[in-house]
Amino acid sequence: MRYGQFDDEQREYVIERPDTPLPWINYLGTDAYFGIVSNTAGGYSFYRDARLRRLTRYRYNNAPLDVGGRYVYVRDDVSGDYWSPSWQPTPERELDDYECRHGLSYTRIGSSRRGIRAETLYFAPLGETLEVWRVRVTNERTDNAELSLFSSVEFCLWDAQDDATNYQRNFNTGQVEVVDGVIYHKTEYRERRDHFAYFACSEPLAGFDTQREAFLGAYRGWDRPVVVESGLSKNSVAHGWQPIGSHHVRLRLAPGETREVVFVLGYAENPKDDKFDPPGSQTINKTRVKPVISRWLRPEVVDQGYADLRAYWDRLLNTLHVTTPDGDTNRMVNVWNAYQCLVTFNMSRSTSLYETGIGRGMGFRDSNQDLLGFVHMIPERARERILDIAATQKEDGGAYHQYQPLTKRGNNDIGDGFNDDPLWLILGVAAYLKETGDHTFLDERVPFDNVPGSEVPLYEHLRRSLKYTLDRLGPHGLPLIGRADWNDCLNLNCFSDTPGEPFQTTENASGGVAESVFIAGLFVLAAKELAVIAGLRGQDGEEVVYRAAAEKMAGTITEHGWDGAWFRRAYDFYGNVLGSGENDEGQIFIEPQGICVLGGVGLEDGLAVKALDSVADRLATPHGIVLQQPAFSSYRIELGEISSYPPGYKENAGIFCHTNPWIMIAETMVGNGDRAFDYYRRINPSAREGISETHRTEPYVYAQMIAGRDAPTHGEAKNSWLTGTAAWNFVAISQWILGIRPDFGGLRIDPVLPTGWPGFTATREFRGATYEITVTGSGRVDHLLVDGVRVEGALVPPAEPGAVVRVEAILG
Amino acid sequence: MRYGQFDDEQREYVIERPDTPLPWINYLGTDAYFGIVSNTAGGYSFYRDARLRRLTRYRYNNAPLDVGGRYVYVRDDVSGDYWSPSWQPTPERELDDYECRHGLSYTRIGSSRRGIRAETLYFAPLGETLEVWRVRVTNERTDNAELSLFSSVEFCLWDAQDDATNYQRNFNTGQVEVVDGVIYHKTEYRERRDHFAYFACSEPLAGFDTQREAFLGAYRGWDRPVVVESGLSKNSVAHGWQPIGSHHVRLRLAPGETREVVFVLGYAENPKDDKFDPPGSQTINKTRVKPVISRWLRPEVVDQGYADLRAYWDRLLNTLHVTTPDGDTNRMVNVWNAYQCLVTFNMSRSTSLYETGIGRGMGFRDSNQDLLGFVHMIPERARERILDIAATQKEDGGAYHQYQPLTKRGNNDIGDGFNDDPLWLILGVAAYLKETGDHTFLDERVPFDNVPGSEVPLYEHLRRSLKYTLDRLGPHGLPLIGRADWNDCLNLNCFSDTPGEPFQTTENASGGVAESVFIAGLFVLAAKELAVIAGLRGQDGEEVVYRAAAEKMAGTITEHGWDGAWFRRAYDFYGNVLGSGENDEGQIFIEPQGICVLGGVGLEDGLAVKALDSVADRLATPHGIVLQQPAFSSYRIELGEISSYPPGYKENAGIFCHTNPWIMIAETMVGNGDRAFDYYRRINPSAREGISETHRTEPYVYAQMIAGRDAPTHGEAKNSWLTGTAAWNFVAISQWILGIRPDFGGLRIDPVLPTGWPGFTATREFRGATYEITVTGSGRVDHLLVDGVRVEGALVPPAEPGAVVRVEAILG
Repeated sequence: MRYGQFDDEQREYVIERPDTPLPWINYLGTDAYFGIVSNTAGGYSFYRDARLRRLTRYRYNNAPLDVGGRYVYVRDDVSGDYWSPSWQPTPERELDDYECRHGLSYTRIGSSRRGIRAETLYFAPLGETLEVWRVRVTNERTDNAELSLFSSVEFCLWDAQDDATNYQRNFNTGQVEVVDGVIYHKTEYRERRDHFAYFACSEPLAGFDTQREAFLGAYRGWDRPVVVESGLSKNSVAHGWQPIGSHHVRLRLAPGETREVVFVLGYAENPKDDKFDPPGSQTINKTRVKPVISRWLRPEVVDQGYADLRAYWDRLLNTLHVTTPDGDTNRMVNVWNAYQCLVTFNMSRSTSLYETGIGRGMGFRDSNQDLLGFVHMIPERARERILDIAATQKEDGGAYHQYQPLTKRGNNDIGDGFNDDPLWLILGVAAYLKETGDHTFLDERVPFDNVPGSEVPLYEHLRRSLKYTLDRLGPHGLPLIGRADWNDCLNLNCFSDTPGEPFQTTENASGGVAESVFIAGLFVLAAKELAVIAGLRGQDGEEVVYRAAAEKMAGTITEHGWDGAWFRRAYDFYGNVLGSGENDEGQIFIEPQGICVLGGVGLEDGLAVKALDSVADRLATPHGIVLQQPAFSSYRIELGEISSYPPGYKENAGIFCHTNPWIMIAETMVGNGDRAFDYYRRINPSAREGISETHRTEPYVYAQMIAGRDAPTHGEAKNSWLTGTAAWNFVAISQWILGIRPDFGGLRIDPVLPTGWPGFTATREFRGATYEITVTGSGRVDHLLVDGVRVEGALVPPAEPGAVVRVEAILG
Repeated sequence: MRYGQFDDEQREYVIERPDTPLPWINYLGTDAYFGIVSNTAGGYSFYRDARLRRLTRYRYNNAPLDVGGRYVYVRDDVSGDYWSPSWQPTPERELDDYECRHGLSYTRIGSSRRGIRAETLYFAPLGETLEVWRVRVTNERTDNAELSLFSSVEFCLWDAQDDATNYQRNFNTGQVEVVDGVIYHKTEYRERRDHFAYFACSEPLAGFDTQREAFLGAYRGWDRPVVVESGLSKNSVAHGWQPIGSHHVRLRLAPGETREVVFVLGYAENPKDDKFDPPGSQTINKTRVKPVISRWLRPEVVDQGYADLRAYWDRLLNTLHVTTPDGDTNRMVNVWNAYQCLVTFNMSRSTSLYETGIGRGMGFRDSNQDLLGFVHMIPERARERILDIAATQKEDGGAYHQYQPLTKRGNNDIGDGFNDDPLWLILGVAAYLKETGDHTFLDERVPFDNVPGSEVPLYEHLRRSLKYTLDRLGPHGLPLIGRADWNDCLNLNCFSDTPGEPFQTTENASGGVAESVFIAGLFVLAAKELAVIAGLRGQDGEEVVYRAAAEKMAGTITEHGWDGAWFRRAYDFYGNVLGSGENDEGQIFIEPQGICVLGGVGLEDGLAVKALDSVADRLATPHGIVLQQPAFSSYRIELGEISSYPPGYKENAGIFCHTNPWIMIAETMVGNGDRAFDYYRRINPSAREGISETHRTEPYVYAQMIAGRDAPTHGEAKNSWLTGTAAWNFVAISQWILGIRPDFGGLRIDPVLPTGWPGFTATREFRGATYEITVTGSGRVDHLLVDGVRVEGALVPPAEPGAVVRVEAILG
C-alpha cells in the first residue's frame, strides 16, 4: 500500500496520512545550517556540526516515536480545543485532512480541523544560518474564529552528547534572554561560547515561555502542554533545567480570512571581544543579528527566499534530465536520487533517523564514493572534498578510515588499516577528471597526514595508493585485507571474544595471511584508471607499469580468486578460503562478483557471465540481491562482525543495497540490459512505493539495507538516506544503463537498455556545454549523430563551453 | 508543603501524591544486581555496571519526565477501562487513591481505581541477580471483576551508551526467545555475550509481547499501548528494532478477593562453552536459570526473600541507633542518612536521576570520603575498597582521579593532577583503623598503578601521599593545586577558551604558581593522622617528622593563608590571591574555613572562631551555607569552571552541601553546638520536608546542591542521592555533634550539643562490642561512667567482642 504519492511536476513527495510506517524525513539547509524534519514536524537543527553545535533537542528511539520537533499548536480560544496541524505531537486529536509535502530542502505540512486550516512551510534560506517557519492559518468556518497560535522548540545545550548525559552540570547552566519578543537561547554564552540561538516571531506576542516545565506542566508531554490547554503563556524565564522557546500569538480571523505568521529560528556568532552589550555586562550583543531577524520576519523576504531555494535546486538538477519510458527511473534520476546524493554529500553519515549526529566522522572511502553521485552537479565541491581527503592520507599510502569534519584531520580513534581505502581515492579523482577534464588538478600540492611541508602533487598520492596495495600482498598474491575491506564487517584479523568490543578498532591479531579478492578486483579497476591518467599526463612508462600490474592482479584473481562458477571472497587468517563452494555458509558473496567485473576481470574469458549467472541464481531476491549465501547461522570469531548479525540482516545476508548497482553495472558490461534494469527496479524506492507497508522507509530515497530472505522481515528497509547506495545507483542507472557516461576524452553515450524500450531522451550539461541527447533503436550503440554529423563509436567529442550540442545515438 | 510523610516505624517514606516536584527515587539491590525506581515506577536495572550491563532502557530528561520503567497495567475487561496502578505512564487516568512507600532497597506502590486495588512490591533479593515484582490485586467492588494484567519492560541492548547512539547496528540485532511463558532477552547472545535477561510470570499467560511497536502500536507511547487498550496481546516476537517484555494474565476476582501475581526480571550468565542447548544450536541453555526462575515465582519464596532483605537492613542499621530530642536527626542518623551512605558506596556517582550510569568511574577522592559514612556498617567492604583505590596510586604518590569499577584500573581519560587526591587516602585508611583497630591492614601489600611486582605495604602508600604534597609546594610554601583540589571546578591552570572543552582534563598551562590553601589545611589534618598512625606502629621518628610537617604547614597557612577575618582560598597562576578581601568577587570561600579548622589550624590563636564568624556572617543562608561570595558575575578564564556557572548554582556560590558539614564539625571543635546543629538542620532533608515545593528533591536524602542566594531559584535542590554530602553529614552529626566518635584508642563520646537538649541516648556497635550510651547534662564531657565506673575524659576503653557496655557521659 501507499502512504502518499510523487508530485513529479513540483518535485515533491506528498504524504497523505501522517502515520507512515516509520517517520519519513527530509533535510533542511544547503550549506552550513541544517536540519532534519519528519512528515509530522519531528526533527532537529544544527549549525555545521550535528554533535557540537546542535540547536534543538531530539530524542532518538523514543516512545512514542519521533516526538521532539518544530511544533506549532493551534488553539480555539472559544471552545478550548487545541491541536497541532502536523499531527504530532497531538496524534489523539484527529485531523479532518492532512498533507505533508517534502520538497527539495523544504517541507510543507498542512491540515485542517473543525474548519481551521493551518499549513507550515519549513526551509532554511540560502546563505543564511537560520530556518523559517511560515505558518498560514485560514478560517474556513462561516463565523469568526478566535485562535491562539503557540510555537515550540526545545533547545539543545549545544553539545548533543554532553546534553544527553551530563545532567549534573546541564540542569544548572540553561540561560535565555527575551527581548522585544525574541527568545535568545544563550546557555554557556556567559563563558566560552560566542554563539547563541534565537527564535523570533513576526507578530506581537500575547506571551512566551522558555522553561519546559512551565510550558508543558509537571509530568506532561508535548501532547498536552498546560500552556496550550489553558491558552495562557506563563512568560517563564529559564534558569537551568530545560530551556525551550514558545511564542503565543492571538489571531482573530473572519470567515475565509487567512493570516500568515512567520517564525525564525537561527544561529548567530559574535566576535569574542564584542560579545556583550553594554561591554562588561552579560547581555548578548544583538547589533549584528537584529537586522537579520527583522528581515526574515517579513513575508516578502520569506517568499523570495523560498523562490531562491527552488531556483537553486532547478539549477543543480538541470545538469542531467532524462525522459525514459519508466516513470520510476525518471523521477529518481531527475530529482530524488540526485537530491539524496547531495544530502549525503552534506551529511556524510552523520544525521538521519538512524545516525544520531554524534558518532561518525567523514569516511575516506565513503566520501570518495559519495562524490561519484554529485560531482556532475557541483564539481568544485567534489574538488574541495578530494583535497581534504587526500590530505589525510599517510606517507605509505595508507588512510585513516575517517576524518573529522571540523578539523579535517584523520581520526586516530578509528585508525587505519582498512586496506581498500586508498584505492578509492583513485576512483574519486578519476571521476572528477572525467567530469571536468581539469587535469591540472593532479598537480595540486597536498600534504600527507596534514603535516605542513609534506606536500606533494595529488598525482603522487594516487601512486602511493596503488603502491600501498602492492606492498601488502599475501601468499596467493592477493591483497591483504587489514582490518576490513569495503565490507567493514568482514574482520578476518580481529578475533574478538569480548562483548561490546568494536570489531573495527580492536587490536588485530598478527601473523595471519588474510587476503581480499574484493581489494584485488578494486585494484585492477583503480590501476587501469591510473594507467589512463598516467598516459594522459604523458607518463607512458608508468602507464605500462600500471597496466601490467592490473593484468597481473587480474591473472591472480583468475588463478586464486575463481571458484568454478563465481569469484571467491577472501582467504582468512589461516589461509582458508571464504566465498567458495567449499564453505558450509558464506559460499558466495556479492562484492567480488561486482567489483571484479567492474575491473574487467572475466569479461573476455566468460567468467564474468558465469559469475553474474551465479548471482542471479543464488543471491537475487524480489527485494534485491543479498550480500551472501548461505547466511551465517552462528558467530564465527574468525570472520568478525559479519557473522554477528542475525541471518538476513545487514552484512549477514541482508540486501546491502550499496552493492546492488555494482551488479547492475557488471550486467551492462556483459550486455545484459534486461537484468541490469530488473535489478535496478527491485531496489528503486519509487518502484517499491506500492509495498510501503513492507518496505517501510521513504519511497523517495534509497535505504542502506533491505532485510534479506533469511530474515523474518524480508523486504523491510532500514537506514534510509545516508548511504553510498545513493551515489552508486545514480552511477549505475545514469552512466551504465542509460549510458550517459563522462569519460576522460568526452561524454560517452553507450546505453545498455532493457528490451522493448524504444529509446529515451536526455539533457546533460558537461564541461560547460549542453548536450541534447536522443537514443533510438535497440541493442548497443552503432554510431552517433552529433549535430547531424556521423561519429563512429560512442564518444561525443568535447564541445566548446556554452555550446548546445544535439546528439543522436543510434542503437542496433 | 509536603508530598508525603516519614513512617519511622517501618523505615519508609510514604509518598501520598504521585506528582512530586521531581521524580523521587529509590534504589533496588544490595550487591551485584541494582536498579533505580521512582515513586511512579520509573527507572531501570543493571548488573554490576550501569553502562555495560544495563537490562532495561530509560530515557533521561524526557518529556514527560520519568517515563520508562517497571510498569504494570490493569484492564477492566468488561468496560475496557485501563490504567497503571503506579500513575505513570497513564497519568491522565485518575486514581482514587495512591501511595508509594520507599523502603530500604524496596519500593511498594499501590492505588485503586473504580473499586480495583492494585499494589506492587519491587525488590531485588539478597544474593540473587534478579528483581521481583509482587503484584496484589483486590476486587473491592460488590460484583465480580474480569481483569487483565499486563506487565512491561523495555530491554536495553546491554551497553547503554551504544544503545542510545548506534541505531545503524542496534535496530538489527534485537533477539528474544519465549519459552514456557518466560521471555528471554538475548540480543547479541548469539555472538560474544554469555549473558541474557529473563522476564517471567507466576501465572498462566493469556499472551505476551516482545516487540515494542506491536505492544504500543505505531506512534503510541506507554500511556496507551494498543495491546492494553484492546486487551489482546499479539504474541509478537522481536526481530531487531526494540525488544520489550510484556505478559498478559487474565484474572477473575470475586468481590473482596485478592490475587497475587509475581513477575521476575533477572540477569543470567552461562559458561562460554555451554551457552547453547542443544550444543550447536542458537537456543539459550536454560538449565541453570530455570530453577532460579521457578523458585522466585513462588509466593512463599518471595515473602521470605522480602523478610530476609528487611532483616539485612535491620542488622546494618543496628550499628548505630540514636534517640535525641530532634526527630529529623533521629530518622536521618538511624535510617536514611545511613541508607544513603550505603547506596552511595554501591553506586559511587554512576546512577541516579542526574547520573546516567554511562559516564563516571569510581573517584579516588570520592570513594575515600564515601567510606567515612559506611565503614562502621560494613568495614570489610571499606577495606576492600581502600585496597582497590590504593592499587591505582602512582609511584610518586599521585593518583588517577578516577578508576574503572570493572577493571579497577586508573582512568587515563581523566588522568591525574588533582593534587588533593592522595591525601584523602590517609583519611580513608585512618577512618578504617579507628573503626576496626585492625592495624595489620597497614602491612597489606598493594601495588602502584596496578603493576604486578610493585607491591609495597599500604603504609608506604600513605607516606607517598604526604610526600606528593611536600614535593609540590609553591612560592608561599603552600601546596600547588594542579588541575584542581577538592573543588573540581577551581581550575587555576586551565585557561580554557574553547567551548565544550572539559575543564578538568584540558592540557594545563605550565609555568604558573597556583597554590591551594585548602590542600594545605587538608595536609595538616592528614599529616597529624599519619603521625598518630606512625606512633602506634612504633615509628616514633616518623611521627615526629609528620607532626613537624603539619606544624610547619599550619604556620604557612597562618602566614600566607589568613586574610584578616577568614582563611584565603588560593593563589592563582600569577600568584594573585583568591578568597580575600582584595578580590572583587570570590572574597570568601567555605572550603578553607572548614578544612583548616578540621586540621586544627587557628584553634589556639582564635583564628578559627574568627573564620567561622565570617562564614556565619557572609556565607550562611536559611537554606544552607553557600560556597563563596560574592558570586562570579562573569566567566574568569584564570579560575575555570567555577565561574562558568550562572551565579548561585553549583560551585559558583551554590550551597554545595558537601562542604556544610565541615563547618558543622569546625563549630563543634570551637564548642559552638548551637551553630553546628543549626547548620545541620538547614540542609537536613527531613527538616526541609515542609518546604518540598521549594526544595523539590527527595526529603529523605541529601542533595549535592541547593541553589544559593544569588540564584532565582534559591533553596531548590539538585542532584540528590549520590554525593559526598551523605558521608560527611553522617560524620558531622554522629561523630561531632552527638560526638560518638571512633578513635584509634577506642570509642570517644564527646558531644557538642545545642543548648537546651537534656541529652540523648544511643546504641553503638564497635569492634564487636555493643555500647549503650546515655548522655546527660549540658556543655562538654566532664567524665564517663563505664559500666558504672568513672573514667576521666571522653574515651571509652575498648571492650571485649561480644560485651555489652553501658556508658554514661556526664556533661558540664
